[in-house]
Amino acid sequence: MDCIFCKIINGEIPSYKIYEDDQIMAFLDITQGTKGHTLVIPKTHFTNIYDMDEKSIGYLHSKTPLLAKSLKAAFNPIGINVVNNNDKPLQSVFHYHIHLIPRYEDDGVNISTPNNYGKLEDEDFKKLVKKISENLK
Amino acid sequence: MDCIFCKIINGEIPSYKIYEDDQIMAFLDITQGTKGHTLVIPKTHFTNIYDMDEKSIGYLHSKTPLLAKSLKAAFNPIGINVVNNNDKPLQSVFHYHIHLIPRYEDDGVNISTPNNYGKLEDEDFKKLVKKISENLK
Repeated sequence: MDCIFCKIINGEIPSYKIYEDDQIMAFLDITQGTKGHTLVIPKTHFTNIYDMDEKSIGYLHSKTPLLAKSLKAAFNPIGINVVNNNDKPLQSVFHYHIHLIPRYEDDGVNISTPNNYGKLEDEDFKKLVKKISENLK
Repeated sequence: MDCIFCKIINGEIPSYKIYEDDQIMAFLDITQGTKGHTLVIPKTHFTNIYDMDEKSIGYLHSKTPLLAKSLKAAFNPIGINVVNNNDKPLQSVFHYHIHLIPRYEDDGVNISTPNNYGKLEDEDFKKLVKKISENLK
């Protein structure tokens, strides 16, 4: 399979490795968004969140506190964003991955949780809940 | 403890609930960034990723494929961002939470993984790896 992250896992492409065990690997993003920008990926190929199984995604995230604490201790950032993008056009590499992005004063990064859908009434919220709940399976 | 998410969990503050089990709860963000913007929180109070334990954070994330798939089926977004912000000034509520943000054409949301730290040489990457690895514990 022509997947750049699979090639990193099997060593065909070199990487700056932070952490590895039998299920996951963490390495520096070759495009450093900020100092210490790290990717965490499962060794098994999953396209994105939609095809991850409970056990694999749970295990991967179980190691993120360790990684986040090491980034904090290493670089003393003001905070850290954990970001996972799924589906075109948000996703660039189609092997599930999360970004750990240490943040610094005036780093120019814009990751804001938005407020774009406007003010909703109680009945609007209830319609959304109904629609999601009908599809929760 | 004066924590708005703990109050949502114990029912003191109402919420638009999507999912609940013995360990986690998912509900609509009262500030809908986009249609279906959902928060997922642990029932136990953790401040952020730094004090989450492996089991709790792993369990919470193990349920995100289910939730992401239900949002996709409900609203047919072009993709979904999963975002977790830690520490001031990135974090607004100091109870660990993740955002599931369904994305739509021209939704005005800006969540981009950045490229701000400049081009690094091999030796720069190695220094970063060394610094992080020394703090991986």
